[in-house]
Amino acid sequence: MNLDTEQAKAVVLLSGGLDSATVSAIAQSEGFQVYAVSFDYGQRHKVELDAANRVARQLGIKHHKTIHIDLNGVGGSALTDTQLAVPDYQERATEDIPITYVPARNLTFLSLALGWAEILGARRIYIGVNAVDYSGYPDCRPEFIQQFEKVANLATAAEVNQHPFAIIAPLQFMTKAEIIRTGSALGIDYSETISCYNPDEQGRACGRCDACHYRKQGFIDAGVPDVTKYAE
Amino acid sequence: MNLDTEQAKAVVLLSGGLDSATVSAIAQSEGFQVYAVSFDYGQRHKVELDAANRVARQLGIKHHKTIHIDLNGVGGSALTDTQLAVPDYQERATEDIPITYVPARNLTFLSLALGWAEILGARRIYIGVNAVDYSGYPDCRPEFIQQFEKVANLATAAEVNQHPFAIIAPLQFMTKAEIIRTGSALGIDYSETISCYNPDEQGRACGRCDACHYRKQGFIDAGVPDVTKYAE
Repeated sequence: MNLDTEQAKAVVLLSGGLDSATVSAIAQSEGFQVYAVSFDYGQRHKVELDAANRVARQLGIKHHKTIHIDLNGVGGSALTDTQLAVPDYQERATEDIPITYVPARNLTFLSLALGWAEILGARRIYIGVNAVDYSGYPDCRPEFIQQFEKVANLATAAEVNQHPFAIIAPLQFMTKAEIIRTGSALGIDYSETISCYNPDEQGRACGRCDACHYRKQGFIDAGVPDVTKYAE
Repeated sequence: MNLDTEQAKAVVLLSGGLDSATVSAIAQSEGFQVYAVSFDYGQRHKVELDAANRVARQLGIKHHKTIHIDLNGVGGSALTDTQLAVPDYQERATEDIPITYVPARNLTFLSLALGWAEILGARRIYIGVNAVDYSGYPDCRPEFIQQFEKVANLATAAEVNQHPFAIIAPLQFMTKAEIIRTGSALGIDYSETISCYNPDEQGRACGRCDACHYRKQGFIDAGVPDVTKYAE
Protein backbone atom coordinates (compact mmCIF):
# COMPACT_ATOMS: atom_id res chain seq x y z
CA MET A 1 0.00 0.00 0.00
CA ASN A 2 1.40 3.39 -0.95
CA LEU A 3 -0.05 5.30 1.95
CA ASP A 4 1.49 2.88 4.41
CA THR A 5 3.23 5.47 6.49
CA GLU A 6 0.08 7.56 6.79
CA GLN A 7 -2.19 4.66 7.58
CA ALA A 8 -3.82 4.79 11.02
CA LYS A 9 -2.56 2.16 13.43
CA ALA A 10 -4.63 -0.28 15.43
CA VAL A 11 -3.46 -2.71 18.08
CA VAL A 12 -5.08 -6.13 17.81
CA LEU A 13 -4.99 -8.85 20.46
CA LEU A 14 -3.95 -11.92 18.52
CA SER A 15 -4.19 -15.26 20.29
CA GLY A 16 -3.93 -17.42 17.20
CA GLY A 17 -7.52 -18.55 17.50
CA LEU A 18 -10.35 -18.25 15.03
CA ASP A 19 -11.83 -15.13 16.63
CA SER A 20 -8.68 -13.04 16.85
CA ALA A 21 -7.67 -14.00 13.29
CA THR A 22 -11.06 -12.75 12.12
CA VAL A 23 -10.71 -9.53 14.10
CA SER A 24 -7.28 -8.89 12.59
CA ALA A 25 -8.72 -9.24 9.10
CA ILE A 26 -11.64 -6.96 10.00
CA ALA A 27 -9.25 -4.28 11.31
CA GLN A 28 -7.29 -4.50 8.04
CA SER A 29 -10.48 -4.35 5.98
CA GLU A 30 -11.38 -1.17 7.87
CA GLY A 31 -8.15 0.38 6.65
CA PHE A 32 -5.95 0.07 9.73
CA GLN A 33 -2.34 -0.97 9.89
CA VAL A 34 -2.43 -3.81 12.39
CA TYR A 35 -0.01 -4.02 15.30
CA ALA A 36 -0.71 -7.48 16.68
CA VAL A 37 0.13 -8.47 20.22
CA SER A 38 0.21 -11.99 21.64
CA PHE A 39 0.81 -13.08 25.21
CA ASP A 40 2.96 -15.87 26.54
CA TYR A 41 1.55 -16.28 30.04
CA GLY A 42 2.37 -19.90 30.70
CA GLN A 43 -0.73 -21.21 28.95
CA ARG A 44 -0.74 -24.97 28.48
CA HIS A 45 -1.78 -24.48 24.89
CA LYS A 46 1.43 -22.78 23.79
CA VAL A 47 0.99 -24.02 20.28
CA GLU A 48 -1.45 -21.12 20.00
CA LEU A 49 1.57 -18.80 19.93
CA ASP A 50 2.79 -20.66 16.83
CA ALA A 51 -0.67 -20.23 15.41
CA ALA A 52 -0.50 -16.50 16.16
CA ASN A 53 2.74 -16.31 14.19
CA ARG A 54 1.20 -18.20 11.28
CA VAL A 55 -1.88 -15.97 11.26
CA ALA A 56 0.29 -12.85 11.33
CA ARG A 57 2.22 -14.15 8.32
CA GLN A 58 -0.93 -15.20 6.49
CA LEU A 59 -2.51 -11.77 6.91
CA GLY A 60 0.69 -9.89 6.11
CA ILE A 61 0.85 -8.28 9.55
CA LYS A 62 4.25 -6.63 9.71
CA HIS A 63 4.21 -5.69 13.37
CA HIS A 64 3.68 -8.52 15.81
CA LYS A 65 4.94 -8.62 19.38
CA THR A 66 4.73 -11.36 21.98
CA ILE A 67 4.79 -10.09 25.54
CA HIS A 68 5.92 -12.60 28.16
CA ILE A 69 4.29 -12.56 31.56
CA ASP A 70 5.69 -14.86 34.17
CA LEU A 71 2.84 -15.31 36.60
CA ASN A 72 5.29 -17.08 38.90
CA GLY A 73 2.98 -19.72 40.21
CA VAL A 74 -0.08 -17.49 40.52
CA GLY A 75 -2.00 -20.40 38.94
CA GLY A 76 -5.69 -20.82 39.58
CA SER A 77 -6.86 -21.89 36.12
CA ALA A 78 -6.89 -25.11 34.13
CA LEU A 79 -5.34 -23.12 31.29
CA THR A 80 -2.18 -22.30 33.25
CA ASP A 81 -2.02 -25.03 35.89
CA THR A 82 -1.20 -28.44 34.46
CA GLN A 83 -2.42 -30.03 37.70
CA LEU A 84 -5.96 -29.14 36.66
CA ALA A 85 -7.62 -31.03 33.81
CA VAL A 86 -9.39 -29.26 30.95
CA PRO A 87 -12.96 -30.55 31.10
CA ASP A 88 -15.01 -31.65 28.12
CA TYR A 89 -17.76 -29.34 26.97
CA GLN A 90 -21.02 -29.64 28.86
CA GLU A 91 -24.15 -27.60 29.20
CA ARG A 92 -23.84 -25.23 32.12
CA ALA A 93 -26.05 -22.92 34.08
CA THR A 94 -25.28 -19.49 32.64
CA GLU A 95 -23.95 -18.17 35.94
CA ASP A 96 -21.27 -20.84 36.22
CA ILE A 97 -17.73 -19.82 35.45
CA PRO A 98 -15.62 -22.67 34.09
CA ILE A 99 -12.28 -23.81 35.47
CA THR A 100 -10.60 -22.65 32.26
CA TYR A 101 -11.29 -19.03 33.25
CA VAL A 102 -7.97 -17.24 33.87
CA PRO A 103 -8.51 -14.57 36.53
CA ALA A 104 -8.50 -11.07 35.09
CA ARG A 105 -6.86 -12.26 31.87
CA ASN A 106 -8.57 -10.00 29.36
CA LEU A 107 -8.14 -7.05 31.68
CA THR A 108 -4.40 -7.72 31.90
CA PHE A 109 -4.05 -8.27 28.16
CA LEU A 110 -6.03 -5.16 27.30
CA SER A 111 -3.96 -3.14 29.78
CA LEU A 112 -0.71 -4.21 28.15
CA ALA A 113 -2.16 -3.63 24.68
CA LEU A 114 -3.24 -0.18 25.80
CA GLY A 115 0.27 0.67 26.95
CA TRP A 116 1.63 -0.31 23.55
CA ALA A 117 -1.13 1.58 21.74
CA GLU A 118 -0.29 4.71 23.69
CA ILE A 119 3.36 4.46 22.68
CA LEU A 120 2.48 3.78 19.03
CA GLY A 121 -0.09 6.55 18.84
CA ALA A 122 -2.79 4.01 17.95
CA ARG A 123 -6.29 4.98 19.01
CA ARG A 124 -8.03 1.69 18.50
CA ILE A 125 -7.60 -1.62 20.24
CA TYR A 126 -9.37 -4.58 18.68
CA ILE A 127 -10.29 -7.63 20.71
CA GLY A 128 -12.11 -10.76 19.59
CA VAL A 129 -14.37 -11.25 22.59
CA ASN A 130 -17.70 -12.83 21.89
CA ALA A 131 -20.74 -12.98 24.15
CA VAL A 132 -22.85 -15.43 22.16
CA ASP A 133 -21.07 -18.75 21.53
CA TYR A 134 -18.61 -18.58 24.39
CA SER A 135 -17.64 -20.19 27.66
CA GLY A 136 -19.29 -17.63 29.92
CA TYR A 137 -16.16 -15.80 30.99
CA PRO A 138 -16.99 -12.56 32.81
CA ASP A 139 -14.28 -10.66 30.95
CA CYS A 140 -15.94 -11.31 27.60
CA ARG A 141 -19.13 -9.45 28.46
CA PRO A 142 -20.03 -6.23 26.65
CA GLU A 143 -20.34 -4.33 29.95
CA PHE A 144 -16.73 -5.22 30.74
CA ILE A 145 -15.52 -3.93 27.38
CA GLN A 146 -17.47 -0.69 27.80
CA GLN A 147 -16.09 -0.13 31.26
CA PHE A 148 -12.57 -0.93 30.11
CA GLU A 149 -12.79 1.81 27.49
CA LYS A 150 -13.63 4.28 30.25
CA VAL A 151 -10.77 3.19 32.45
CA ALA A 152 -8.38 3.18 29.49
CA ASN A 153 -9.00 6.85 28.98
CA LEU A 154 -8.34 7.60 32.65
CA ALA A 155 -5.29 5.34 32.96
CA THR A 156 -3.38 7.08 30.21
CA ALA A 157 -2.57 10.50 28.82
CA ALA A 158 -5.61 10.18 26.52
CA GLU A 159 -7.56 13.04 28.10
CA VAL A 160 -4.57 15.35 28.31
CA ASN A 161 -3.68 14.65 24.70
CA GLN A 162 -7.30 14.65 23.55
CA HIS A 163 -6.50 11.32 22.05
CA PRO A 164 -9.21 8.97 23.34
CA PHE A 165 -8.92 5.23 22.96
CA ALA A 166 -11.70 3.07 21.55
CA ILE A 167 -11.97 -0.61 22.35
CA ILE A 168 -13.41 -2.34 19.30
CA ALA A 169 -15.02 -5.73 19.75
CA PRO A 170 -16.60 -6.44 16.37
CA LEU A 171 -17.50 -10.06 17.17
CA GLN A 172 -19.28 -9.25 20.39
CA PHE A 173 -22.79 -10.00 19.23
CA MET A 174 -22.06 -12.39 16.38
CA THR A 175 -22.67 -16.12 16.46
CA LYS A 176 -19.69 -18.36 15.80
CA ALA A 177 -21.20 -19.14 12.39
CA GLU A 178 -21.40 -15.43 11.53
CA ILE A 179 -17.78 -14.98 12.60
CA ILE A 180 -16.68 -17.85 10.37
CA ARG A 181 -18.66 -16.55 7.40
CA THR A 182 -17.20 -13.05 7.91
CA GLY A 183 -13.64 -14.34 8.11
CA SER A 184 -14.11 -16.67 5.15
CA ALA A 185 -15.37 -13.76 3.07
CA LEU A 186 -12.20 -11.88 4.05
CA GLY A 187 -10.14 -14.81 2.80
CA ILE A 188 -8.89 -16.26 6.08
CA ASP A 189 -7.54 -19.80 6.01
CA TYR A 190 -8.77 -21.06 9.38
CA SER A 191 -6.70 -24.22 9.19
CA GLU A 192 -3.80 -22.15 10.58
CA THR A 193 -5.73 -21.09 13.68
CA ILE A 194 -6.06 -23.00 16.96
CA SER A 195 -9.02 -22.58 19.28
CA CYS A 196 -8.65 -25.72 21.40
CA TYR A 197 -7.89 -25.39 25.12
CA ASN A 198 -6.05 -28.68 25.13
CA PRO A 199 -4.34 -29.32 21.79
CA ASP A 200 -1.66 -31.97 21.39
CA GLU A 201 1.97 -31.15 20.67
CA GLN A 202 1.34 -30.99 16.94
CA GLY A 203 -1.32 -28.37 17.58
CA ARG A 204 -4.20 -30.70 16.75
CA ALA A 205 -7.48 -29.94 18.49
CA CYS A 206 -8.96 -32.27 21.13
CA GLY A 207 -12.45 -31.91 19.65
CA ARG A 208 -14.02 -32.17 23.10
CA CYS A 209 -13.40 -29.00 25.13
CA ASP A 210 -15.65 -25.93 25.22
CA ALA A 211 -13.65 -24.11 22.59
CA CYS A 212 -13.73 -27.07 20.20
CA HIS A 213 -17.46 -27.47 20.76
CA TYR A 214 -18.31 -23.91 19.73
CA ARG A 215 -15.89 -23.90 16.82
CA LYS A 216 -17.08 -27.22 15.41
CA GLN A 217 -20.72 -26.20 15.67
CA GLY A 218 -19.87 -22.85 14.07
CA PHE A 219 -18.50 -24.45 10.92
CA ILE A 220 -21.57 -26.66 10.67
CA ASP A 221 -23.96 -23.74 11.16
CA ALA A 222 -22.01 -21.56 8.73
CA GLY A 223 -22.09 -24.24 6.06
CA VAL A 224 -18.33 -23.83 5.69
CA PRO A 225 -16.08 -26.92 5.52
CA ASP A 226 -14.34 -27.45 8.86
CA VAL A 227 -10.61 -27.32 8.13
CA THR A 228 -9.60 -27.81 11.77
CA LYS A 229 -6.97 -30.46 12.42
CA TYR A 230 -8.32 -32.80 15.04
CA ALA A 231 -6.25 -35.27 17.04
CA GLU A 232 -8.79 -38.04 16.62
CA MET B 1 -0.70 -14.16 65.54
CA ASN B 2 -3.04 -16.98 66.61
CA LEU B 3 -5.87 -16.19 64.24
CA ASP B 4 -3.52 -16.19 61.26
CA THR B 5 -5.46 -18.72 59.24
CA GLU B 6 -8.71 -16.84 59.71
CA GLN B 7 -7.28 -13.44 58.96
CA ALA B 8 -8.70 -11.73 55.88
CA LYS B 9 -6.24 -11.39 53.02
CA ALA B 10 -5.32 -8.24 51.16
CA VAL B 11 -3.11 -7.88 48.10
CA VAL B 12 -0.75 -4.91 48.30
CA LEU B 13 1.25 -3.50 45.40
CA LEU B 14 4.75 -3.20 46.82
CA SER B 15 7.30 -1.28 44.76
CA GLY B 16 9.85 -0.86 47.52
CA GLY B 17 9.23 2.87 47.72
CA LEU B 18 8.15 4.97 50.64
CA ASP B 19 4.49 5.03 49.67
CA SER B 20 3.95 1.32 49.13
CA ALA B 21 5.84 0.48 52.34
CA THR B 22 3.46 2.79 54.19
CA VAL B 23 0.43 1.23 52.51
CA SER B 24 1.62 -2.26 53.49
CA ALA B 25 1.89 -1.19 57.12
CA ILE B 26 -1.55 0.45 56.96
CA ALA B 27 -3.10 -2.75 55.57
CA GLN B 28 -1.52 -4.72 58.40
CA SER B 29 -2.69 -2.20 60.98
CA GLU B 30 -6.22 -2.64 59.61
CA GLY B 31 -5.99 -6.35 60.41
CA PHE B 32 -5.24 -7.82 56.99
CA GLN B 33 -2.77 -10.51 56.12
CA VAL B 34 -0.72 -8.88 53.39
CA TYR B 35 0.02 -10.63 50.10
CA ALA B 36 2.54 -8.30 48.53
CA VAL B 37 3.18 -8.21 44.80
CA SER B 38 6.09 -6.53 43.03
CA PHE B 39 6.72 -6.20 39.32
CA ASP B 40 9.89 -6.70 37.37
CA TYR B 41 9.05 -4.90 34.12
CA GLY B 42 12.50 -3.90 32.98
CA GLN B 43 12.59 -0.76 35.08
CA ARG B 44 16.00 0.92 35.16
CA HIS B 45 15.71 1.26 38.91
CA LYS B 46 15.77 -2.49 39.60
CA VAL B 47 17.30 -1.87 42.98
CA GLU B 48 13.71 -1.07 43.97
CA LEU B 49 13.00 -4.81 43.78
CA ASP B 50 15.70 -5.37 46.40
CA ALA B 51 14.05 -2.64 48.43
CA ALA B 52 10.68 -4.41 48.07
CA ASN B 53 12.27 -7.57 49.46
CA ARG B 54 13.75 -5.65 52.38
CA VAL B 55 10.46 -3.94 53.15
CA ALA B 56 8.61 -7.27 53.05
CA ARG B 57 11.10 -8.70 55.54
CA GLN B 58 10.99 -5.64 57.75
CA LEU B 59 7.20 -5.77 57.97
CA GLY B 60 7.05 -9.52 58.41
CA ILE B 61 5.12 -10.05 55.16
CA LYS B 62 5.13 -13.80 54.59
CA HIS B 63 3.65 -13.81 51.10
CA HIS B 64 5.54 -11.78 48.52
CA LYS B 65 5.55 -12.49 44.79
CA THR B 66 7.45 -10.79 42.01
CA ILE B 67 5.74 -11.04 38.64
CA HIS B 68 8.01 -10.64 35.62
CA ILE B 69 6.68 -8.85 32.57
CA ASP B 70 8.88 -8.78 29.52
CA LEU B 71 7.65 -5.80 27.57
CA ASN B 72 9.88 -6.92 24.71
CA GLY B 73 11.00 -3.54 23.57
CA VAL B 74 7.65 -1.80 24.02
CA GLY B 75 9.64 1.04 25.61
CA GLY B 76 8.31 4.56 25.57
CA SER B 77 9.36 5.74 29.01
CA ALA B 78 12.50 7.03 30.66
CA LEU B 79 11.91 4.44 33.38
CA THR B 80 12.23 1.48 31.01
CA ASP B 81 14.27 2.87 28.13
CA THR B 82 17.89 3.54 29.04
CA GLN B 83 18.23 5.69 25.91
CA LEU B 84 16.07 8.31 27.62
CA ALA B 85 17.49 10.33 30.49
CA VAL B 86 15.63 10.80 33.76
CA PRO B 87 15.21 14.56 34.09
CA ASP B 88 15.79 16.57 37.26
CA TYR B 89 12.73 17.84 39.08
CA GLN B 90 11.26 21.05 37.77
CA GLU B 91 8.03 22.94 38.16
CA ARG B 92 5.58 21.88 35.46
CA ALA B 93 2.25 22.99 34.18
CA THR B 94 -0.23 20.60 35.82
CA GLU B 95 -1.36 19.18 32.49
CA ASP B 96 2.12 18.04 31.47
CA ILE B 97 2.88 14.34 31.72
CA PRO B 98 6.55 13.63 32.39
CA ILE B 99 8.79 11.34 30.38
CA THR B 100 9.02 9.00 33.37
CA TYR B 101 5.36 8.06 32.88
CA VAL B 102 5.11 4.37 31.88
CA PRO B 103 2.07 3.90 29.64
CA ALA B 104 -0.80 2.16 31.43
CA ARG B 105 1.53 0.92 34.17
CA ASN B 106 -0.79 1.14 37.16
CA LEU B 107 -3.61 -0.35 35.12
CA THR B 108 -1.42 -3.32 34.21
CA PHE B 109 -0.14 -3.77 37.76
CA LEU B 110 -3.62 -3.52 39.26
CA SER B 111 -4.93 -6.03 36.69
CA LEU B 112 -2.29 -8.58 37.62
CA ALA B 113 -2.84 -7.93 41.32
CA LEU B 114 -6.56 -8.42 40.76
CA GLY B 115 -5.99 -11.80 39.14
CA TRP B 116 -3.94 -12.90 42.13
CA ALA B 117 -6.51 -11.51 44.58
CA GLU B 118 -9.25 -13.47 42.85
CA ILE B 119 -7.27 -16.69 43.19
CA LEU B 120 -6.44 -15.99 46.84
CA GLY B 121 -9.96 -15.00 47.76
CA ALA B 122 -8.73 -11.55 48.83
CA ARG B 123 -11.31 -8.78 48.48
CA ARG B 124 -9.06 -5.80 48.93
CA ILE B 125 -6.24 -4.48 46.81
CA TYR B 126 -4.13 -1.73 48.34
CA ILE B 127 -2.17 0.68 46.18
CA GLY B 128 0.00 3.59 47.24
CA VAL B 129 -1.06 6.13 44.63
CA ASN B 130 -0.99 9.72 45.72
CA ALA B 131 -2.55 12.71 44.02
CA VAL B 132 -0.98 15.48 46.07
CA ASP B 133 2.84 15.37 46.05
CA TYR B 134 3.28 13.41 42.85
CA SER B 135 4.56 13.62 39.30
CA GLY B 136 1.19 14.15 37.61
CA TYR B 137 0.77 10.66 36.23
CA PRO B 138 -2.78 10.10 34.93
CA ASP B 139 -2.97 6.65 36.50
CA CYS B 140 -2.54 8.06 39.99
CA ARG B 141 -5.73 10.13 39.85
CA PRO B 142 -8.65 9.28 42.15
CA GLU B 143 -11.03 9.01 39.17
CA PHE B 144 -8.82 6.32 37.68
CA ILE B 145 -8.86 4.32 40.92
CA GLN B 146 -12.65 4.62 41.14
CA GLN B 147 -13.15 3.45 37.58
CA PHE B 148 -10.69 0.63 38.05
CA GLU B 149 -12.75 -0.70 40.95
CA LYS B 150 -15.76 -0.82 38.63
CA VAL B 151 -13.90 -2.61 35.87
CA ALA B 152 -12.37 -5.03 38.38
CA ASN B 153 -15.82 -6.19 39.35
CA LEU B 154 -16.81 -6.71 35.72
CA ALA B 155 -13.55 -8.36 34.65
CA THR B 156 -13.80 -11.13 37.22
CA ALA B 157 -16.23 -13.55 38.80
CA ALA B 158 -16.89 -10.97 41.55
CA GLU B 159 -20.53 -10.37 40.60
CA VAL B 160 -21.30 -14.04 40.13
CA ASN B 161 -19.71 -14.90 43.46
CA GLN B 162 -21.09 -11.80 45.19
CA HIS B 163 -17.53 -11.16 46.17
CA PRO B 164 -16.83 -7.57 45.14
CA PHE B 165 -13.34 -6.15 45.09
CA ALA B 166 -12.40 -2.87 46.69
CA ILE B 167 -9.40 -0.87 45.58
CA ILE B 168 -7.99 0.88 48.63
CA ALA B 169 -5.76 3.88 48.10
CA PRO B 170 -5.24 5.26 51.60
CA LEU B 171 -2.56 7.78 50.61
CA GLN B 172 -4.59 9.33 47.85
CA PHE B 173 -5.26 12.66 49.49
CA MET B 174 -2.35 12.81 51.91
CA THR B 175 0.67 15.05 51.56
CA LYS B 176 4.07 13.35 51.48
CA ALA B 177 4.66 14.69 55.00
CA GLU B 178 1.43 13.10 56.25
CA ILE B 179 2.44 9.80 54.63
CA ILE B 180 5.84 9.90 56.33
CA ARG B 181 4.31 10.76 59.70
CA THR B 182 1.77 7.92 59.33
CA GLY B 183 4.42 5.37 58.40
CA SER B 184 6.80 6.55 61.11
CA ALA B 185 4.01 6.12 63.68
CA LEU B 186 3.57 2.56 62.38
CA GLY B 187 7.26 1.94 62.96
CA ILE B 188 8.54 1.86 59.39
CA ASP B 189 12.27 2.26 58.87
CA TYR B 190 12.26 4.26 55.64
CA SER B 191 16.02 3.86 55.16
CA GLU B 192 15.21 0.51 53.51
CA THR B 193 12.91 2.05 50.91
CA ILE B 194 13.89 3.55 47.56
CA SER B 195 11.84 6.22 45.82
CA CYS B 196 14.43 7.55 43.36
CA TYR B 197 13.85 7.10 39.61
CA ASN B 198 17.56 6.99 38.96
CA PRO B 199 19.41 5.39 41.87
CA ASP B 200 23.00 4.20 41.55
CA GLU B 201 23.98 0.54 41.71
CA GLN B 202 24.19 0.64 45.49
CA GLY B 203 20.61 1.86 45.57
CA ARG B 204 21.55 5.38 46.63
CA ALA B 205 19.15 8.13 45.58
CA CYS B 206 20.13 10.78 43.02
CA GLY B 207 18.54 13.54 45.08
CA ARG B 208 17.50 15.41 41.94
CA CYS B 209 14.60 13.62 40.18
CA ASP B 210 10.91 14.22 40.80
CA ALA B 211 10.61 11.34 43.21
CA CYS B 212 13.60 12.52 45.27
CA HIS B 213 12.24 16.05 45.30
CA TYR B 214 8.90 15.07 46.80
CA ARG B 215 10.44 12.65 49.26
CA LYS B 216 13.09 15.05 50.51
CA GLN B 217 10.57 17.83 50.98
CA GLY B 218 8.23 15.36 52.72
CA PHE B 219 10.78 14.56 55.42
CA ILE B 220 11.44 18.26 55.96
CA ASP B 221 7.73 19.09 56.19
CA ALA B 222 7.06 16.11 58.46
CA GLY B 223 9.83 17.12 60.82
CA VAL B 224 11.19 13.58 60.61
CA PRO B 225 14.94 12.99 60.07
CA ASP B 226 15.61 12.03 56.43
CA VAL B 227 17.21 8.59 56.54
CA THR B 228 17.47 8.32 52.74
CA LYS B 229 20.87 7.27 51.39
CA TYR B 230 21.92 9.82 48.80
CA ALA B 231 24.67 9.32 46.24
CA GLU B 232 26.09 12.78 46.80
